[in-house]
Amino acid sequence: MVGGFKLTKWLKESGPESDIVISSRIRIARNLSGFPFPHMLKEDNGKDIANRVYNAVIEGNESLGKDFKLVEMHSIDKVDRLNYVEKHIISPALAKNTATGSLLINQDESIAILINEEDHIRIQCLLPGFQLDNSWNLADKIDDLVEEKVKYSFHEELGYLTSCPTNLGTGIRASLMMHLPALNMTGYINSILQASSQIGIAVRGIYGEGTEFLGNIFQVSNQVTLGITEEEIIKNLKNVGIQIIQKERYIRESLLKDKKVELEDKAYRSYGILKNARKITSTEAMKLISHVKLGVVLGLIKDSSLEKLNQLMEMIQVGFLQKYYKSQLSEYDRDVKRAEIIRMNI
Amino acid sequence: MVGGFKLTKWLKESGPESDIVISSRIRIARNLSGFPFPHMLKEDNGKDIANRVYNAVIEGNESLGKDFKLVEMHSIDKVDRLNYVEKHIISPALAKNTATGSLLINQDESIAILINEEDHIRIQCLLPGFQLDNSWNLADKIDDLVEEKVKYSFHEELGYLTSCPTNLGTGIRASLMMHLPALNMTGYINSILQASSQIGIAVRGIYGEGTEFLGNIFQVSNQVTLGITEEEIIKNLKNVGIQIIQKERYIRESLLKDKKVELEDKAYRSYGILKNARKITSTEAMKLISHVKLGVVLGLIKDSSLEKLNQLMEMIQVGFLQKYYKSQLSEYDRDVKRAEIIRMNI
Repeated sequence: MVGGFKLTKWLKESGPESDIVISSRIRIARNLSGFPFPHMLKEDNGKDIANRVYNAVIEGNESLGKDFKLVEMHSIDKVDRLNYVEKHIISPALAKNTATGSLLINQDESIAILINEEDHIRIQCLLPGFQLDNSWNLADKIDDLVEEKVKYSFHEELGYLTSCPTNLGTGIRASLMMHLPALNMTGYINSILQASSQIGIAVRGIYGEGTEFLGNIFQVSNQVTLGITEEEIIKNLKNVGIQIIQKERYIRESLLKDKKVELEDKAYRSYGILKNARKITSTEAMKLISHVKLGVVLGLIKDSSLEKLNQLMEMIQVGFLQKYYKSQLSEYDRDVKRAEIIRMNI
Repeated sequence: MVGGFKLTKWLKESGPESDIVISSRIRIARNLSGFPFPHMLKEDNGKDIANRVYNAVIEGNESLGKDFKLVEMHSIDKVDRLNYVEKHIISPALAKNTATGSLLINQDESIAILINEEDHIRIQCLLPGFQLDNSWNLADKIDDLVEEKVKYSFHEELGYLTSCPTNLGTGIRASLMMHLPALNMTGYINSILQASSQIGIAVRGIYGEGTEFLGNIFQVSNQVTLGITEEEIIKNLKNVGIQIIQKERYIRESLLKDKKVELEDKAYRSYGILKNARKITSTEAMKLISHVKLGVVLGLIKDSSLEKLNQLMEMIQVGFLQKYYKSQLSEYDRDVKRAEIIRMNI
């Protein structure tokens, strides 16, 4: 709780390898047999699907029923929807579907079931740190529970059918959110981008296209879903993840050896600005928080913590600010309030 | 005392209008009759002059004798000489004259008598804040005391004769060291530079030519010494000083009205960097300290004080650092030590 306001709960915990891996995510795309894909779906059908999934999860299973709540897009306002987008729980596309879009979400927000997004159902598990297996096991279990109650659209040869052909087959997208300041700072990230794409793994900067490497945060995910088992997808991504972790750590160590004062200086100056600024854009804040994070994980700076900084990265987003201050804020006011919230929480 | 080391003593006090005027300085140029000017002076003559002045001040007057000490340039090392230069007590030219250059200086360092610089004698009084009259009265008193014991080189029509014709006549240079961030920030300083030169007043940035407006600090001084009385020189400079103070204050007030958050942001960010940096150049430090000073005098920032910041401006100079850390430091090490001393003292 931050001033009575709810952040993504798992941000308070730190998982394995959390000095580099922020979170591990599994997303499973499924569609119901006998219904058109969402882009062709009439509103009635959409509501029907939402009810079936709701019944499968909430009514059909006692423990899930207690843990999950239903959030219909039309029942929450724009600010709340934006806040879910910024927490990476829903996509901007689902936020826009106020006609039939819904979300089933558990209490700690680690599991979300998106209804009538690009596919009828997307099951998503998001855990802190490097724990792809746990995330996969959770998602797989939910998938089985839902499949007991509804009939998925499945083809003997193609596997699970999905709205977009890139998801065909397993319908699985596994991804790691990684903080890679050393790789980015030294330019090595580019060779990783190239090498990864050759083995069917995509590495992308997050938070917007124009500012790809903002905050030194990268999403690493599988590109292939067809002709490969779920276990192979997870295993491949895990291996790439381990290699990136090793490389990032290696470069951090050599920077620490050759450029210790410079790293310390960068981390502390960034901390000093964040602790004192009266006005700050989210782009600048992301950049500075990333410098401080690197300082914290390298043991150069003791004045903050990884948990605080991960939380801050969420708190500086527009949707969070609007929700926290309970008002629509102008860009100017957001920059002022963002600086305020950073000063209080760093 | 800072860590056992002596700063310019009056920096701890703050004089009148000290939110804008750092110090008021009077310098009187005099030469002894019967000796060539210093650039033509033989070493023996130089020593003779030094002795005569020493006797006039130290031996000839009991109270001055107790208050003053003699510092011969050859008897102190390079670092100490540099330190006196940075405190604006001696000129680089005197520091170089290790053959016959000497300095008589009182305990609070407000009065310095330079021997064998460009002229045989230069009497200099430096007081904190806007107090030209007090500074003039002090210098005039010392001048009278010296003149009781030695014969000055004087011409009925030209007045006091000096090595450089620009000092002929009264031999007086009066100057104010002013902190003018608002005038500099808004560009109004340029019209002041122009207008002042038309009435025989020079306005210059300090600390080196290439970085003229460094730290928003300006030296305002009279250019004319001939055909005008001492009192008129002081009065003219005082009037210009008052006008500049009023203008700077007026702009500060309007900035405070229109750009309060921006000023606050700039001051606090600068404070945050100074409080946290691990490596900093003197140029950057001067700039940041100036921003914090403006924040302090406008009441926007409470975390530091004018006295601390004025002292810091002296402590970040090369000579002070070398003396404080008792060693010749490389440029890299100076940047690291400078950051350290700022963190401890801001």
